[in-house]
Amino acid sequence: MAQINANYLKLKAGYLFPEIARRVKAFTDANPDAAKRLIRCGIGDVTEALPESARTAMKKAVDELGDRATFRGYGPEQGYDFLRKAIGESEYRERGLDIADDEIFISDGSKCDTGNILDIFGPDNVIAITDPVYPVYVDTNVMAGHTGPADESGAYAGLMYLKCGPENGFVPEVPPKKADLIYLCYPNNPTGAVATRTQLEAWVAYALKHGSILLYDAAYGDYIQDDTIPRSIYEIPGARDCAIEFRSFSKSGGFTGVRGAWTVIPKSLNGTTPEGTKHPVHALWSRRHTTKFNGVSYPVQRGAEALYSPEGRRQVRDLIRHYMGNAKILCDAARKAGLTVYGGEHAPYIWVAGPKGQTSWQIFDRMLNEANVVITPGSGFGSAGEGYFRISAFNSRANVEEVARRLVAMKW
Amino acid sequence: MAQINANYLKLKAGYLFPEIARRVKAFTDANPDAAKRLIRCGIGDVTEALPESARTAMKKAVDELGDRATFRGYGPEQGYDFLRKAIGESEYRERGLDIADDEIFISDGSKCDTGNILDIFGPDNVIAITDPVYPVYVDTNVMAGHTGPADESGAYAGLMYLKCGPENGFVPEVPPKKADLIYLCYPNNPTGAVATRTQLEAWVAYALKHGSILLYDAAYGDYIQDDTIPRSIYEIPGARDCAIEFRSFSKSGGFTGVRGAWTVIPKSLNGTTPEGTKHPVHALWSRRHTTKFNGVSYPVQRGAEALYSPEGRRQVRDLIRHYMGNAKILCDAARKAGLTVYGGEHAPYIWVAGPKGQTSWQIFDRMLNEANVVITPGSGFGSAGEGYFRISAFNSRANVEEVARRLVAMKW
Repeated sequence: MAQINANYLKLKAGYLFPEIARRVKAFTDANPDAAKRLIRCGIGDVTEALPESARTAMKKAVDELGDRATFRGYGPEQGYDFLRKAIGESEYRERGLDIADDEIFISDGSKCDTGNILDIFGPDNVIAITDPVYPVYVDTNVMAGHTGPADESGAYAGLMYLKCGPENGFVPEVPPKKADLIYLCYPNNPTGAVATRTQLEAWVAYALKHGSILLYDAAYGDYIQDDTIPRSIYEIPGARDCAIEFRSFSKSGGFTGVRGAWTVIPKSLNGTTPEGTKHPVHALWSRRHTTKFNGVSYPVQRGAEALYSPEGRRQVRDLIRHYMGNAKILCDAARKAGLTVYGGEHAPYIWVAGPKGQTSWQIFDRMLNEANVVITPGSGFGSAGEGYFRISAFNSRANVEEVARRLVAMKW
Repeated sequence: MAQINANYLKLKAGYLFPEIARRVKAFTDANPDAAKRLIRCGIGDVTEALPESARTAMKKAVDELGDRATFRGYGPEQGYDFLRKAIGESEYRERGLDIADDEIFISDGSKCDTGNILDIFGPDNVIAITDPVYPVYVDTNVMAGHTGPADESGAYAGLMYLKCGPENGFVPEVPPKKADLIYLCYPNNPTGAVATRTQLEAWVAYALKHGSILLYDAAYGDYIQDDTIPRSIYEIPGARDCAIEFRSFSKSGGFTGVRGAWTVIPKSLNGTTPEGTKHPVHALWSRRHTTKFNGVSYPVQRGAEALYSPEGRRQVRDLIRHYMGNAKILCDAARKAGLTVYGGEHAPYIWVAGPKGQTSWQIFDRMLNEANVVITPGSGFGSAGEGYFRISAFNSRANVEEVARRLVAMKW
């Protein structure tokens, strides 16, 4: 009989966001009036209009497909040269970073890429993740059989957890032991923390020393407000030899429903075979991408390209300014409510320490029932997130101002 | 040091189509004049304009994203209800087939899904594939570690190969031994063969007897010209309990560059845990889809939905009529050239037996050099394809007529 992948049975009840969706649905079904004033600051999903530059380019691309002379079928699996070049120039070379166009792989999402990347690595790597962490990193490792079962706190045997808290500014120090694959995400989801150049230098030095690979998720890089904070891991010398970078148009260009992202794998990055021979990781991902993926929708790639036009850049800046304005309002309100607030300065996420003694899900339920606001419980990101909650700044200004009022009005 | 997935090292030099691309590029670089008259009938990629119904719907969807009142961010990972319903109604329930909307998972391609489906199955299944076969089925099993190394003929140890040839009409009989996962593709890529109801009934009976799962790729289902030939595996009683079906808009609606497909996993389909307990496969794929995928681009889903409107259906029919008209011209020409021809009746692929003693790659090189026509060498699909070649009917009528002339003119 066909055997299933039994590793899936180790997974906890549900991926965090479907679980939130279930609780919200139960609440709104039971409270139709309160449901009308519900404001969602849970899932980190953009809310504002898709930039005009992207829309115009996408519609033009659709028109091209309507004429057999300009029709395009299968594109290169790795992405069209026009988009790889736009990214290579704008995100890297204009900033003095040494990344070639063919080291950039276009995909339909960083969630997909951060999950799928495990395909090209072996089963015996030591995997390090931060705690709290974006759940996809953990769950995809569980699915791949890289862990044992979870304990009561939700921690899986076999993973190396790097605790993050106020004591380290939510950026872990390098561990005393060797890890082979290390997930780092800055600006961080969920804590909104950023890593300084010095902190990232320490991680690159660690990776080079141990032959580890940093899986660097910089999906929120455009939210950094201070040029001294690295937006890309490749700002750190040596990173070309030890880091893969995941980037996305989701949060910069409002592409969460449009789907566009990219992953950088430098050609100088090596893993090792079981026999100890060095092997370029670029070739493996290229093979995976061409075999298990068929490229991103052509109109989407044209839309993404347009975000690098002068108008596109301005429209992206305006979007980010809007969301970061929201973040400030939310930070101020949470502080006014007497809560301790982290993040929100270089990221669209505000990470709030709840009142002592209340669990994250208790705060989630209270916020839902008392303020009719959906937040994300910190414990959903790992046991070190217990007692915290995440507020997303992705919303209209009016909604954010209303959430701010309700936050202050709640009896904390 | 980070270990790579060493299974990738067992893969042969390149995925078939990149290898063809390399040879064509070498030829056109060396022969710029001949390059001008090159006609590509290699990769099975559509060439005609995207249907107007899809284009209109896509542009309308892009416009919706331009207004925050109608903006949509993350959609459901499994696909929007409107598209799942359109598919469920039009492809299944209108035809009397019992498939519910929530058994349909929207994705960005059948290539992705047929590769990714292995994620949810265990490592010890016996995998059966036909020979010749779409290379993705084989390569993704190699990557997943389900095989040993390849022998000289390119056959991988550990796979059960089901030989297909003229003697069985390119549809394999059920094997005497048990296989757990069986890839079947009808209308077939590359041979253009179709499976009769009786043949599919035998496969369903086999799967039910052994607890096997059929991975049924029906990406070319719309090319079937005869209502007695099943378009969907679910036309066979019992298939709900033993089959997953992969379908695509690529070849029906000309979506190869737009990217849209779906996979059906009936809720009544079970696999087994290592302990022998039955477990629903639907739940596993749902978990994979929500964790490692983030849904298909919203405008693409609207475009796909529009293919089911009255105009959309007519436009799809017209496209298929065009390509099948091409197929007839190519079949006739190849026969006139004295070659033995298979397929091309219910599929956009013509499968031709080359002259005795010539290998598929020899024929490929001759066609490229003497006729300036790109075909696909049959041996690229497996050792049983040696001596054959595939001509794709995806082209303009004028190109196909020219290819037909050149086929007849060649000294075979």
